[in-house]
Formats: sequence, structure tokens, C-alpha cells
Amino acid sequence: MYTGGNDVTFKITLAYDGTAFVGWQRQAAGASIQGLLEEALARLDHGEVIVSGAGRTDAGVHALGQVASLSLRRAIDGPSLVRSLNASLPDSVRVLEADLVPDTFHARYSARRKTYRYRLWNADVLSPFERQYVWHVCGPLDRDAMAAAAMLIEGRHDFAAFRAAGGKTRSTDREVFSSRVVVAPWPPVPPCPLSPLILYEVSGSGFLRHMVRNVVGTLVEIGRGRRPIEWMSEVLAGRDRRQAGPTAPARGLVLVSVEYDAGLLAPER
Amino acid sequence: MYTGGNDVTFKITLAYDGTAFVGWQRQAAGASIQGLLEEALARLDHGEVIVSGAGRTDAGVHALGQVASLSLRRAIDGPSLVRSLNASLPDSVRVLEADLVPDTFHARYSARRKTYRYRLWNADVLSPFERQYVWHVCGPLDRDAMAAAAMLIEGRHDFAAFRAAGGKTRSTDREVFSSRVVVAPWPPVPPCPLSPLILYEVSGSGFLRHMVRNVVGTLVEIGRGRRPIEWMSEVLAGRDRRQAGPTAPARGLVLVSVEYDAGLLAPER
Repeated sequence: MYTGGNDVTFKITLAYDGTAFVGWQRQAAGASIQGLLEEALARLDHGEVIVSGAGRTDAGVHALGQVASLSLRRAIDGPSLVRSLNASLPDSVRVLEADLVPDTFHARYSARRKTYRYRLWNADVLSPFERQYVWHVCGPLDRDAMAAAAMLIEGRHDFAAFRAAGGKTRSTDREVFSSRVVVAPWPPVPPCPLSPLILYEVSGSGFLRHMVRNVVGTLVEIGRGRRPIEWMSEVLAGRDRRQAGPTAPARGLVLVSVEYDAGLLAPER
Repeated sequence: MYTGGNDVTFKITLAYDGTAFVGWQRQAAGASIQGLLEEALARLDHGEVIVSGAGRTDAGVHALGQVASLSLRRAIDGPSLVRSLNASLPDSVRVLEADLVPDTFHARYSARRKTYRYRLWNADVLSPFERQYVWHVCGPLDRDAMAAAAMLIEGRHDFAAFRAAGGKTRSTDREVFSSRVVVAPWPPVPPCPLSPLILYEVSGSGFLRHMVRNVVGTLVEIGRGRRPIEWMSEVLAGRDRRQAGPTAPARGLVLVSVEYDAGLLAPER
């Protein structure tokens, strides 16, 4: 437990249901996760607190393990910070952990690996319990073709083809460590013999805005048989946003985890 | 496919997220699942249609496999009825199947076995994705004691102790075929080493209003160590509602399935 001094820095881990939010980032109008956290922390710390998130998730995107960093003047220990924040946040946002870190730690700049999951529901009828958390794709999908195509983007590449339309990021080089389609175990929904839930899981050094959703839109074109497996490599090599598939809806996307070098997390003494 | 004649009877199977409804049954005010179905069917059949549900789930209670029966004048086949209803229902209610049955079939009176599941979340922090679908119970729960107590209500008994306060049902005798606590597999939520999700699953010939929720409230008193395992048998034998535990919240309860004798379902020829 940290017991003295000023300006202590915390790494907090969060889960949220993004359905009702304008996204992670504070906007001119509407509730954002960053905004809610900053308001709760300002009350706690009696002054402005800036919260930096590892992934700036868009409106409707969810998180199981978003990470944010923040500095407080007030001396408080991690478990108390968790309790205090959860007491003032809505139950759609939960702080899971708060750890003291060196003041050099920054949730976004220090991140080494981020993992996202995209959830597709492939059956005629969509479960009412999944309606905010999947993209409902009707009609047959060739899951093997999607799995083969997904792996074609692994490695270090220029991902300009999958950037958001109008995206202005200077460098579009990123490294994708793993890009896989997995069929989730699921209780069978009659009369569907296959699991309706298809998961796409991708880990990388970082992601361009809309990159995961644009890769998923491209995978679904391939799954539908409108394009061959190799189209994924062609789109990637073309570096032209207009060649890729459509942007998959936000509600199917979940930020699963953000990882850091252990050395960055060790508290200074 | 049924192609002629009048007054065809259907058995429909439904899933719904009960969060935003006043319950299964049509009420003076508020949206009910029965009301939505009857309105959609009245448009389809050009006249009043009565829908009977197997389980009259309360406000906030969910269903994975509710069953209802209804008769239509219009000739329509099962898959078309499913599509037509889903096109006009909100996405929080989905018709999974529609099967032609003899006109002697009645979803409630013909039911032989109903299965309910109650979902408990036992960890300090509640997942934002579960907030509408569990009872969040903090503090340690003795899962083994709950499992042992759950089995004590199996068999044919007078369940008056677990009826709703003020319940007026004539007979309170019911047969419980199976009453079990199972710990669900779940990805661990740090820093919780146990799965936070505890499921109570109960199958019986029928259930009194609030019976499952009152059994769960009693199980949680035992899990908290406030009462011994045998208290479950004492409460049952006492047949006095005031002796049982509190009524568990509606949002943790799911009607999982309703079963019928095969002979009742065979279409008449």
C-alpha cells in the first residue's frame, strides 16, 4: 500500500459495455468512458485528472481489459481506488484492478501488445442475449476460408488498406502477431447444428482506427464466397482503403487485453 | 408444410431478454411478451389471436426456451410463421421454432417438465456484460453447502413454504425432478481464482409463482453460513412462506426449456 508523497501514477484495468457510450474518448456531447472516469477522479482528487486509455475504442465497442493511466495528488491504495471508482461509475463500466506504476508509465505509449476479439453470429435467428455484442451475418459462411485468410495478415506490414476512411495517421506500419478465426463452443440453438458464434482474435503492436473492423468486413466477403482467400493478401498489398471489404459494425468488437513490458510496471522505490 | 384448412394450432419456442418487459403476461400498462406476440399475430391473421405461454415469467425474468401455443385461421407453414413474427417483434424477443401440433395441445396444461436456471455472480466486481442476467452476491459463499441443500427439495412435496407472498394457488404440491447447484466454467476475472458464476438448475412438473427465486434466496442464506444445510428441509416441511429466505431478484432467472409427451405433439392427420 502506498502511504505518502504526491503525484502517484496508477495503471487501471477496465471492462465496459460500450453500447450506450460515444466511445472511450471524451466528446463534445454524449457520455464517454474517459469522461466518466475523469469526472469521478476529479471529485476524488479535488482537481482535474487526465486519464489516458491504451485503446481509443469507438462508440459501441466493448472492453474486457482496457488499460488506462492516471496520476493523483491524493495518497490512496489500489483496492481503495477500485472501490471508490466503482461506487461512482454506472454498472456498465467496472474497474477490475488498479496498480501503482512508475510515473514514466503511459497506457498508450507504453503498450507492447493489444488483443481484440470480433464476434460474428452466423445463424438465421440472433439470440436476444447477443444482440448488442455481435455482427449478425445470415447465410452460409465458409469458416475454413475465413480462417485461412485471417492468417495472411500476420507479420509486419503497411496496413493502409485497412485504415479508417479519411484516417490521417502518419505511419500505417503495424505488426500483427496473431490473426485467427476460431469457432466458439456454444450450446446448439435448434435447428442450427453448428455453433452460431464465430470469433476473430487478433493481437498486434497496435492498430489503426477501424483496422480490425475493416479486416473483419474483408473476411466476411471471403466467407460468403464473393472473393477468394488470396484476396486478403491482394487488398493488404494494394494499400488502398477502397479495395477492402466494408467496415464491420462496432458492437461486435471487444478490446480483450493490453500488455506491457514487466520492467515498465515495476513500482519505483 | 401445412397447406389447407382452418384453425391450425402451433407450438412456438421463444427466447427473450426480459429486462425491459413487465413479464410474459399482458398487463394494463407496459410491454409484455404475450402482448407483443398477440399484436403481431392479430395483424398476420386479420383478427384476435390468443397466445398461451407455458411459464408466466415475471418482469425481468428471461427465457431461452419458453413455449407458447396459438391457433390461426390463416394457412401458414412453421418457417414462414417464424420469419413473419421475427420481422415484427423487437430483437429482444426471438421466435426460434414453430411446429404444427394437434388442437388439443396447450402450452401450459400439456407441459410435463419445465427447467429453470438461476444465475448468481459471486465476486467483488460484477461484469458489465452480466449486470442484467445475474444476482450479484458479494462475500464468500459455501458452494458445497449450497449444492447439498439444493438436492434436499428433490421429489414430490408441498412447496407452500416457497410460494409467492399472498399466492392463492389451490394446490401447492409439485414434483421437483432435479435441483442442483453447478459452478459454471468461466474465464477467470482477476483477481478472482474461482469462477464467479454459480448456476442453480431446477426441473420439475411445475412451479409456484416465485418458487425458484425463493429457493435461491434460501440457498444463499445457507451459502453465507447464516443457516445450516438442513435448514432447507426444515423450511420445506414448515410450509410457511415467512420461514424461507428472501426472494432472489428476477434478473437472475431464465426459463430454459419446457418438455411435453411426444404423443401430444404428433400432428393429427
